[in-house]
Amino acid sequence: MEITCLLFDGVTALDAVGPYEVLSRIPDVTFTFVSAEGEPVRTDNGVLGLVPSARTGEVSSTDVLVVPGGVGTRRLVDDDALLDWVRAVHATTTWTASVCTGSLVLGAAGLLAGTDATTHWSELPALERYGARPLSERVVERGKLITAAGVSAGIDMALVLTARLAGDVVAQAIQLGIEYDPQPPFDAGSPDRVPAPVVDVVRQRLAGTG
Amino acid sequence: MEITCLLFDGVTALDAVGPYEVLSRIPDVTFTFVSAEGEPVRTDNGVLGLVPSARTGEVSSTDVLVVPGGVGTRRLVDDDALLDWVRAVHATTTWTASVCTGSLVLGAAGLLAGTDATTHWSELPALERYGARPLSERVVERGKLITAAGVSAGIDMALVLTARLAGDVVAQAIQLGIEYDPQPPFDAGSPDRVPAPVVDVVRQRLAGTG
Repeated sequence: MEITCLLFDGVTALDAVGPYEVLSRIPDVTFTFVSAEGEPVRTDNGVLGLVPSARTGEVSSTDVLVVPGGVGTRRLVDDDALLDWVRAVHATTTWTASVCTGSLVLGAAGLLAGTDATTHWSELPALERYGARPLSERVVERGKLITAAGVSAGIDMALVLTARLAGDVVAQAIQLGIEYDPQPPFDAGSPDRVPAPVVDVVRQRLAGTG
Repeated sequence: MEITCLLFDGVTALDAVGPYEVLSRIPDVTFTFVSAEGEPVRTDNGVLGLVPSARTGEVSSTDVLVVPGGVGTRRLVDDDALLDWVRAVHATTTWTASVCTGSLVLGAAGLLAGTDATTHWSELPALERYGARPLSERVVERGKLITAAGVSAGIDMALVLTARLAGDVVAQAIQLGIEYDPQPPFDAGSPDRVPAPVVDVVRQRLAGTG
């Protein structure tokens, strides 16, 4: 089985690495990171470089396509060549997945019209631009589309997807392998459960940089 | 504040990227990935390259040192030059952190003798080799040492550490920013809660590759 994850300048590293760390552990999977030029990309804050192993042009079909998010998606939604590639590859997939604002790229490619989808909580209204119905859920599956909420939600999405692709036992074994037994020290992962001033600070920061 | 994360061939990507995605969002932090030669490293399965921005030799002090894990730590625990660097930099830190088998590197550097620490569940007994007392906990703080369990536990550790470094409100804002509201589809993150045959499969796979 071939799984392909798109990388681009301004990607949020965890959006890509969360699903990769899960999906690449499925037996008999070939996991490939691609970027438009096949060159290393810089993450959203410029701190880390990620090195793909192929150009988008080298991948014309895949079983699973994963589109992560990050500030760089603001350019991708206007990148006709990239959107053509997403559409063409999506036509060949069993599953097309997104994390965070990766769903806006799927939307810009016309893949979410009339369907439910999710994204980072701060960007949910932006999904409507593409005719999608935003759902404030961690993971949304509709047909062969599976969209995840912000950043870390890609791990949960990838475990759900692993169960669909390879069964519950494989998904559980991978969850155990990455010891995904989350114990966040705060109950602060959703804007519904954080004081409004904290939400405002995060929203302003994301508007500036993310 | 300077935060430095070690990269090496055979690192597990999520071990490094989880803490990076949290800690690099602390205001006024300079986050630097280093590798021995300053060259890109390959992750444990060879699929992804990670590009650091400095050589270890360029960093002689840091406020926070993060040592991730992965199969590559099996070489690091015998790498005298690297262990010298870890010891020297640790002498300058406010906090020294590890994820997964990164704690075995801290142990090999002699930093865990007589103290409690944790690591990936499958490697807990290995901590005793270095005189540490293994604890089966998600995050273990002892003095300025903070060690995390396997792979994904680095996210929880980094949020705990963020609260220590910058306060609870900053940690909560970052948790909200990465929408860390985990909803794994299975309760399979700990060997205590997974059927024994699944644990055995994972243990065998890790023994071979991770």
